[in-house]
Amino acid sequence: MTFEPGASELAGRTIFLEDVPLERARERFAALLAELGFAFARTERVRLDDALGRVTATPSFARLSSPHYHASAMDGVALAAAATRQARETAPLALRLGSEAFLVDTGDPLPPGCDAVVPIEDVDLRGNGIVALRAAVAPFAHVRAIGEDVVATETVVAAHRTLGPADLAALAAAGLSEVEVVALPRVAVVTTGSELVDPSVRAPKPGAILDSNGVLLRAYVRRYGGDPVTFARVPDDMNALRRALSDALACDVVLVNAGSSAGSEDYTAGLFAEFGRVVVHGVAIKPGHPLLLGAARRDGRAVPLLGIPGYPVSAALCADLFLRPLLETMGRRDPADESTFETTVSRKIFSPLGDDEYVRAVAARVGDRLTATPLRRGAGVITSLSRANCLIVVPRFSEGVHAGATVRARALRPFAAIERTLLAVGSHDVAIDLLAGRLAARDLELVSANVGSIAGLAALADGATHVAGTHVLDAGSGTYNDVAVRRYVPGKRVALALLARRSQGLIVRRGNPLALHSLVDVAARGARFVNRQKDAGTRMLLDVLLRRDGVDPAAIGGYDRVEFTHLAVAALIADGSADCGLGILAAARALGCDFVPLAEEPYELALDAAYVDEPRIALLLATLSDPALRAEIEALGGYDASSSGALRFVEPSA
Amino acid sequence: MTFEPGASELAGRTIFLEDVPLERARERFAALLAELGFAFARTERVRLDDALGRVTATPSFARLSSPHYHASAMDGVALAAAATRQARETAPLALRLGSEAFLVDTGDPLPPGCDAVVPIEDVDLRGNGIVALRAAVAPFAHVRAIGEDVVATETVVAAHRTLGPADLAALAAAGLSEVEVVALPRVAVVTTGSELVDPSVRAPKPGAILDSNGVLLRAYVRRYGGDPVTFARVPDDMNALRRALSDALACDVVLVNAGSSAGSEDYTAGLFAEFGRVVVHGVAIKPGHPLLLGAARRDGRAVPLLGIPGYPVSAALCADLFLRPLLETMGRRDPADESTFETTVSRKIFSPLGDDEYVRAVAARVGDRLTATPLRRGAGVITSLSRANCLIVVPRFSEGVHAGATVRARALRPFAAIERTLLAVGSHDVAIDLLAGRLAARDLELVSANVGSIAGLAALADGATHVAGTHVLDAGSGTYNDVAVRRYVPGKRVALALLARRSQGLIVRRGNPLALHSLVDVAARGARFVNRQKDAGTRMLLDVLLRRDGVDPAAIGGYDRVEFTHLAVAALIADGSADCGLGILAAARALGCDFVPLAEEPYELALDAAYVDEPRIALLLATLSDPALRAEIEALGGYDASSSGALRFVEPSA
Repeated sequence: MTFEPGASELAGRTIFLEDVPLERARERFAALLAELGFAFARTERVRLDDALGRVTATPSFARLSSPHYHASAMDGVALAAAATRQARETAPLALRLGSEAFLVDTGDPLPPGCDAVVPIEDVDLRGNGIVALRAAVAPFAHVRAIGEDVVATETVVAAHRTLGPADLAALAAAGLSEVEVVALPRVAVVTTGSELVDPSVRAPKPGAILDSNGVLLRAYVRRYGGDPVTFARVPDDMNALRRALSDALACDVVLVNAGSSAGSEDYTAGLFAEFGRVVVHGVAIKPGHPLLLGAARRDGRAVPLLGIPGYPVSAALCADLFLRPLLETMGRRDPADESTFETTVSRKIFSPLGDDEYVRAVAARVGDRLTATPLRRGAGVITSLSRANCLIVVPRFSEGVHAGATVRARALRPFAAIERTLLAVGSHDVAIDLLAGRLAARDLELVSANVGSIAGLAALADGATHVAGTHVLDAGSGTYNDVAVRRYVPGKRVALALLARRSQGLIVRRGNPLALHSLVDVAARGARFVNRQKDAGTRMLLDVLLRRDGVDPAAIGGYDRVEFTHLAVAALIADGSADCGLGILAAARALGCDFVPLAEEPYELALDAAYVDEPRIALLLATLSDPALRAEIEALGGYDASSSGALRFVEPSA
Repeated sequence: MTFEPGASELAGRTIFLEDVPLERARERFAALLAELGFAFARTERVRLDDALGRVTATPSFARLSSPHYHASAMDGVALAAAATRQARETAPLALRLGSEAFLVDTGDPLPPGCDAVVPIEDVDLRGNGIVALRAAVAPFAHVRAIGEDVVATETVVAAHRTLGPADLAALAAAGLSEVEVVALPRVAVVTTGSELVDPSVRAPKPGAILDSNGVLLRAYVRRYGGDPVTFARVPDDMNALRRALSDALACDVVLVNAGSSAGSEDYTAGLFAEFGRVVVHGVAIKPGHPLLLGAARRDGRAVPLLGIPGYPVSAALCADLFLRPLLETMGRRDPADESTFETTVSRKIFSPLGDDEYVRAVAARVGDRLTATPLRRGAGVITSLSRANCLIVVPRFSEGVHAGATVRARALRPFAAIERTLLAVGSHDVAIDLLAGRLAARDLELVSANVGSIAGLAALADGATHVAGTHVLDAGSGTYNDVAVRRYVPGKRVALALLARRSQGLIVRRGNPLALHSLVDVAARGARFVNRQKDAGTRMLLDVLLRRDGVDPAAIGGYDRVEFTHLAVAALIADGSADCGLGILAAARALGCDFVPLAEEPYELALDAAYVDEPRIALLLATLSDPALRAEIEALGGYDASSSGALRFVEPSA
């Protein structure tokens, strides 16, 4: 399986990707489908209880009128209006119950000869079977006449309506129990690549790729109103793919995932051309560039063909931009209203000219303004799309967005979820995941962006995060955090809440095969080290420890090899591609590594002191001293949570 | 079954409905549930392919890292970065393929000893198994390191997230194939009333009520994320309802429909109090007033009890205001973003002080402004809710909204559907339903409000409708429509498009038992007549014909009995509750009546001439001369559609 643009051989030809602007790509695709006479017209009859959210294929005509008889609209007395003309306040008219007047409940049919109802509270019920009336009554007063709601043969629900509860009730009231709806378009989801394995595979071999795109694309098909048809994964073999495509053409739409690029095993473009025609190969969007659009004819029908790129974020974007409108048109659905909002951007977004770029971001309300923090942008990073709650489009004529600029973002989740999001931008700690879990139970969502302690404090200074996880050692004073806070959050009063005290040390391979017990050992034995990014608190601790121990950073092999989280460091060591790194015990344990403690440090959450009474922040602070959270943190190992939640304040320097 | 407020006996007590404001009712309900320790915590494991839209119950932790090996991020050449330090543009470095460098595709694992990839387009592949490099390479260039996306043990998706496609893909990429989600709350839907019958019943007896509320409430339960449990319809019998309620308490929530009022067979309130407690009986909203809120305890759980009023529009509103937030809280769902928009109101809305009133309306874009036309407001008129595309709330401190005022409306359908809505306010004709069907196939929705010819022309004058169906005879000139258009749409140039010429005549009972052949016969034989409302073109025709024939309107029994459509008139005659009325052949046929032609008239659509080239209007006009539509109209009988679509203009009077 191959993922990204390039140029390669296919049956002797070199394929170069195009750079078709989005609107032009859609036009070409629509024109091809029109030329091939594409139409989707399959319908089915479903019971009303199965019809919610389906789209009507035809108008439905009332079988019965509603009401289908003259019904009393009140609890009261039914009578003939003509007989009441003499009734006066001063001369009440007496009518005999059972012959001249009749007690009725709401919904009861009018007795023969009656054409009006007087509400029970407007009559005198005398004990002797007589009812007295003080005013004349108009014909059809308080009567729901036959057909008041719907008349037999009338249209109850028109064609091409998405059926909601009231539509279904109107159909039922008109005596219908089924409705003709547009069938769900069947969409073949074909994932390709010899390396693909099922996500449930116990221990995939290096090179094996978990088939998460199948899950992704089937879910998008369902979301857009289609019926996904799963095909067996197809290896990188031209004939196998040809057979699979031939079968898939029995569906209404064919999606082939990966193979839309121009790499050495990308057969899809050639086979699309063999079965039908390709009109777009490469779209000027990022991520998602290597997209294929075409169509084939089979059994007198036109079948749209979409070759979707293999990187998951690219695949998701192509589904949104091309599959969604196609399925909405086929299913006769109106696009749902998009929810958008204005937000400032907390960090500069660079974006290449020439591509419309779709940037995933996390928006949150910090103080009284919305701020959006862009997430990592690799097309392979599906978690960034899962974590994002909004999307910012940088048009292809722009080179990016300045920090602090206001943009319009598209909400990926309900606005209520965005409003309750708490941002934690700063250093990463496993205990933050546990805190997030506790907060989720209280309907607060803590989203963390791991950028290191100093960058987190800078975000706090800019009002771009609620909390900044921080553990910065000041070599001069031997204290943690105070100096950094005064330096990087100048002019603000900052609250520091203790998350936990934690051990920092050398993460080493299981059994510590190189017998590394200090940084001196690391240098002496030429061990392959993994460092953290510049500005990370752990990296500063390393530098302090190196100085203390008199070790030259240049003597540490891998001092410049950088990872962004403790877990990522531990994963490299567990895997054998590094020998050691500085990190926390919890990360070592999680990945089955051994640990050599070198220091203990407080890990604190820095917050703007002005907001500590804001309800979400107050709840976060209260949660820190929750005994259940403390127990969970200490169970990680290497943590002392006995003072978690302890709060102190750093006054702004004058 | 009883529907609306009143006062009655229940087990010897008189129950009076309260008038609790909406927010107070919600507070009392929430306080009772809190006091009874209400909590919903059932969860279940589902496969990823079944998890779209479900809400996570717990955080999910990665089983595998993603990638789970160091992967090439490009098609290219893998090598050891350290070996490339000497490569220069002027002195290319040659490496031997297979020992020092290795061809890799995107996604391939790095061969042993390699830590970087050079994209294929940046190297020279020489024929002899040698690859030449012109620049040094940094370690980990174009490599997706282990755990770049997610590291084993890390949180992939937090608790209480509504799962979208990207979340499912992230779970799959982390080696998970199932996810723990919040179970769907089971909601007992109990409909009560001895008169209830299934909507499929062939010929319901007078008084029988089609159980459309069961369909309505089950659909709302599904829409709000619950799992409806259908109970057999319960007759008006205290013991039967007691048994049904006792069974229903096994569910997580109990909805009882009807019996929430205070009528003679309203047992629900008493039984709710018997099983648990009632905290609200009557809410200050319209429609929907007689609502019951309470809760019971069963098997150590608290079970919310909702008594929903029987009128369908009331039931729908109560579901929206009370069931929805309850199920969203139980299901841990964020409320979806509400789509609202500003619109002018085309007609004055009167609303009582004291109740928050929810008015259904049809909004459409006429010219360049949005205008909303309120629909009929009876709580029994479910079609008004089905037809409405927006809701206008008139607060309880207000007596209404002036015509022309701007209000904020809540969209009940996607905005795209509102934008493509065409309004037809005016006289009713069956052929309009057929036109609407044809337009639906072209993705235009024609919504008609039947108010009669003159009111329709007035709406056209106000810019409150696209078209006004009209057929007004001028007694003086003997012409149709021109005079009325000049009078009621002054100062505007109006286009008149012929829908069809149609027969008007006496609709009589099958076999014409009273041998009615003229209006003279109607007066002479004392036949029970049904008239149309004032301003209806058909009523004007009646007056002209009466004058022509020298018949005094007072001699027509039922001249003041009014219906609003041809079909409603015919339904009364078919039912035997009237003998005759003036109307069109198509309506007589639809209801199995006989017909005595008295006149032929053109039925025209009046439009603002300024908009005839607007795309939607142009499509409507083009559709009028569609031969398929003409054939459908003529098949109704009594229509001449040979000139349908003929367009003429009425110039404004000076």
